Amino acid sequence: MAGSFEGNVSNTPLAIGIVGPGLIGKTLLDQFVNQVATLKKEFEIDLRVMGIMNSKKMYLDHTGLELSKWEELLHTHAVASDMSKFTAHFESQDFPNPVIIDCTASAQVSQMYYEWINKGIHVVTPNKKANSGAFDQYKRIRELQRKSRIHYFYEATVGAGLPIISTLRSLVETGDKIVKVEGVFSGTLSYIFNNFNGEKSFSQIVSEAKASGYTEPDPRDDLSGMDVARKVVILARECGLQLELDDVKVQSLVPEPLQGLTSSDEFLNELPNFDEEMELRRKGAEVSGEVLRYVGVVDVKTNEGRVELQSFPKSNALAQLSGSDNLVSFTTSRYLRQPLIVRGPGAGPEVTAAGVFSDLLRVAFYLGAPS
Amino acid sequence: MAGSFEGNVSNTPLAIGIVGPGLIGKTLLDQFVNQVATLKKEFEIDLRVMGIMNSKKMYLDHTGLELSKWEELLHTHAVASDMSKFTAHFESQDFPNPVIIDCTASAQVSQMYYEWINKGIHVVTPNKKANSGAFDQYKRIRELQRKSRIHYFYEATVGAGLPIISTLRSLVETGDKIVKVEGVFSGTLSYIFNNFNGEKSFSQIVSEAKASGYTEPDPRDDLSGMDVARKVVILARECGLQLELDDVKVQSLVPEPLQGLTSSDEFLNELPNFDEEMELRRKGAEVSGEVLRYVGVVDVKTNEGRVELQSFPKSNALAQLSGSDNLVSFTTSRYLRQPLIVRGPGAGPEVTAAGVFSDLLRVAFYLGAPS
Repeated sequence: MAGSFEGNVSNTPLAIGIVGPGLIGKTLLDQFVNQVATLKKEFEIDLRVMGIMNSKKMYLDHTGLELSKWEELLHTHAVASDMSKFTAHFESQDFPNPVIIDCTASAQVSQMYYEWINKGIHVVTPNKKANSGAFDQYKRIRELQRKSRIHYFYEATVGAGLPIISTLRSLVETGDKIVKVEGVFSGTLSYIFNNFNGEKSFSQIVSEAKASGYTEPDPRDDLSGMDVARKVVILARECGLQLELDDVKVQSLVPEPLQGLTSSDEFLNELPNFDEEMELRRKGAEVSGEVLRYVGVVDVKTNEGRVELQSFPKSNALAQLSGSDNLVSFTTSRYLRQPLIVRGPGAGPEVTAAGVFSDLLRVAFYLGAPS
Repeated sequence: MAGSFEGNVSNTPLAIGIVGPGLIGKTLLDQFVNQVATLKKEFEIDLRVMGIMNSKKMYLDHTGLELSKWEELLHTHAVASDMSKFTAHFESQDFPNPVIIDCTASAQVSQMYYEWINKGIHVVTPNKKANSGAFDQYKRIRELQRKSRIHYFYEATVGAGLPIISTLRSLVETGDKIVKVEGVFSGTLSYIFNNFNGEKSFSQIVSEAKASGYTEPDPRDDLSGMDVARKVVILARECGLQLELDDVKVQSLVPEPLQGLTSSDEFLNELPNFDEEMELRRKGAEVSGEVLRYVGVVDVKTNEGRVELQSFPKSNALAQLSGSDNLVSFTTSRYLRQPLIVRGPGAGPEVTAAGVFSDLLRVAFYLGAPS
């Protein structure tokens, strides 16, 4: 086994485990296939996938599996999933630089991060659960990883591949004082309000968004604002706020009477009854030359997180959004009159996997790969 | 000397040299003063300035100078500038992780990078000269630093503190294919065209920009487009293009007959004669519902760099710019229909120094500081 990584001694090997090869994990593996030779040649990064696990089965490899065959291997050579065995496989001293990538959205898998990091395994994930869960648990993970110099990166939890968390960190680390982080953190809600311009009713746009596959199967999962609230918690904690998810003031877009309905079809049937209310809000903004946007806000001065429908003058970058773009605006001591803005598609398997991939390479660079 | 860095063995020490403590260098030193304790406590980064040099004198220190006293030390304890001695000071085996920060705009200082890197000294700079100079020289530096695992970072050469080069790198490294990088790379030219809306003549806006201190002492240095062209070259090379500055097609905004005038006052007196021409272009754009923007473009498909006055529909993010913001738009395989956009103030000592500081911390993280 010790010979597995022999060859160029200056290589930076990465022994990778992937938990949850669903849409994002599969796309990430495809991106690996296309880039692994370049990484080896240009950056001396020796990227090897040593294990893949889904909820039912897992395939473990000792030298790095043939990437293009991972589905076949998982289909024909797998054993029953066993998290302890999976972890033990990466804990082995024979693997330099083990990294587990959690591509699930599972709170249960995120419970493993502490143990992984404690065992010297780096963690990369687009899963929001650990960082938007209990503050104590988040703090415990961060303190351990910092103390033990094990890396834990999660850029793709906010805005997928957009450089949001890394930008925020770099501001904080160089001593800038964050005043406010504000933005549209949901492609679905971006699309809905970018199209809510008086031509169609609110419910009509929501139905069309669902029909086009832009929303969750139940659009209430988007309209509740809880996904945005999780992102607000993640960003707030990067700013140094000790915020719990429950502390975030969330203005849900699901009318109270429709929250209890069992099916999403029922919900969409009833939603038109609330169009008038929403149209009044839109017109109220319009008479002031403004438009509505559903934003997440981290307000460092008041020490709070909010998710709310706000109106913005047309000169504001948030008002100029189009499509289903995300946009994050950082107001800081150094970017006070004009904020620093990052904008672009913030969802979808390609860009989310790219955000994860970028974190993985950050681990490699932090472990000594040439820049 | 070996005892200088004793104490916590897991510290990441940085032995820093600063060449050119002008406006940016001075601001950077101020930022160090405010952040050095936090870096030590939270990131185990032991940041010590071991030398400061300007064109006349230098002050060398063996344990790290008292940051708040650097001006006094350079005033009273300095010796005559000597680049060889300055370099030799950092080459010493006693200093772990030497980093020289070139805060000048000097081509002569940039000639030192190869030697510094060759001697194991990391280089961080906002100076555009090395990367927009002869391609062969740039390539030699990049190949050496990669081969020898010495870091060379220059985020602040484009857009000051905005995450532009790091974002582009991360796209390229994860295997995205860059189609086009396009943007407004000059705060001055952003300001001028954001205000050129029919209310005032072009020459009037240029004069006002100069009076407000937004332009170079001679506004032709901005209007020639050469500074933008240098940034285009830097970005083009990050995209893998082998471009020389001479290859960039630059549409100068200085009318041909005014290029030879000796003084900038003469230039500003003559410029109104060309207002009609510029106003025609503006109106031409306006009838199509568009606005003029002076953009730099890296077109990877056609393998070329351009700096030109273009018109953009009002829905385009470039048309929505305000103030003196920079904006960079990355169109790639993964960000094809909607680009990834970074926007914000791209000039000024505070944000430029912050861009340099962020690169310096990147060196520390790449050398093992905890994340």
